[in-house]
Amino acid sequence: MKTVQFVLLDRFADWEAAFLAPALREGVMPGHPGKYRVTFAAPDGRPVRSIGGLRVQPDCGLEQLPADCAGLILVGGMSWQTPQAAAVVPLVEEALRRSILVGAICNAVSFLAAHGYLNDRRHTGNTLDMLRAWGGAAYTGERLYEERQAVRDGLWVTANGTGYLEFTRECLLALEADTPEAVAASYAFNKQGFCKE
Amino acid sequence: MKTVQFVLLDRFADWEAAFLAPALREGVMPGHPGKYRVTFAAPDGRPVRSIGGLRVQPDCGLEQLPADCAGLILVGGMSWQTPQAAAVVPLVEEALRRSILVGAICNAVSFLAAHGYLNDRRHTGNTLDMLRAWGGAAYTGERLYEERQAVRDGLWVTANGTGYLEFTRECLLALEADTPEAVAASYAFNKQGFCKE
Repeated sequence: MKTVQFVLLDRFADWEAAFLAPALREGVMPGHPGKYRVTFAAPDGRPVRSIGGLRVQPDCGLEQLPADCAGLILVGGMSWQTPQAAAVVPLVEEALRRSILVGAICNAVSFLAAHGYLNDRRHTGNTLDMLRAWGGAAYTGERLYEERQAVRDGLWVTANGTGYLEFTRECLLALEADTPEAVAASYAFNKQGFCKE
Repeated sequence: MKTVQFVLLDRFADWEAAFLAPALREGVMPGHPGKYRVTFAAPDGRPVRSIGGLRVQPDCGLEQLPADCAGLILVGGMSWQTPQAAAVVPLVEEALRRSILVGAICNAVSFLAAHGYLNDRRHTGNTLDMLRAWGGAAYTGERLYEERQAVRDGLWVTANGTGYLEFTRECLLALEADTPEAVAASYAFNKQGFCKE
């Protein structure tokens, strides 16, 4: 069983890992087995608080990815322009070097733009304007931007902050966490709900 | 500013407080002020892990509700039939006595059924069969069951586990966390997403 490592910074967005982590760890659908170990990393391994006020004790710091790492997931939030975020760059470099999936959602995508990671792969994010604003000269990927909830290009998944379910789906597919049919059923269940409104 | 207290048990469902807590604490829509303090309570004030593996250090135990408490939110998960859950009954009693909003989602609703709280108020839950199975003789509220994502009846809000957004909406309305228009806009934004798929 391989590990998917999530990165949480202070004021992370509560909803952005909230579907993916359970599906990886305890199965995509009820009764299906979980296929991955999940760990949460935060700067210096110290507690962080979510936007909703949840105080999380991470499993580890940002030193390096686990030896058996299959995915690096950057959870959005309000600290992706702070020095905390700069400490995440070496992890992205390590993921690139080791051909590990990188998933980023919301402001974590803007962070990728600011560090020049979105210039040669299809992607989305919290609007093209925001990628331009955060990216400045480091972002030259406009032609590869797509106005969608989530975009997967090889080992990279990006999403806007309301694309938490589509982000989950694309990461689960990339990680082959279950059959495509089970991933689609899980998506529909969470998107539409048990009772249509 | 009043407090809304969330209860988390071990193996709580990551997604079920993930929209409500941020909206209460940091505003229903971007730029809108947060109207509530949010605290997370867990048995004996000890850490709990979510289904997704998030290790949470709660703000307090289950001794009593805050003096300024405006809402008690029972987050679903896999421990609502354990002795841990029994320790939550006095908090529900206190909420009843003090006319404080009680919100419950997923298995936390089944817990309410098992303790006889759903026999005189309209409600929903994780199917009527599940309420009957958990409730046994303590549950006589079948005629008040509604097949919907979330149901609000006065100071009680119930929802099935996929009704996390409708649950959020009904709790925000009950707590008057913002205007009805802002709550509706927030719901639509999170339900449909920034880009329609």
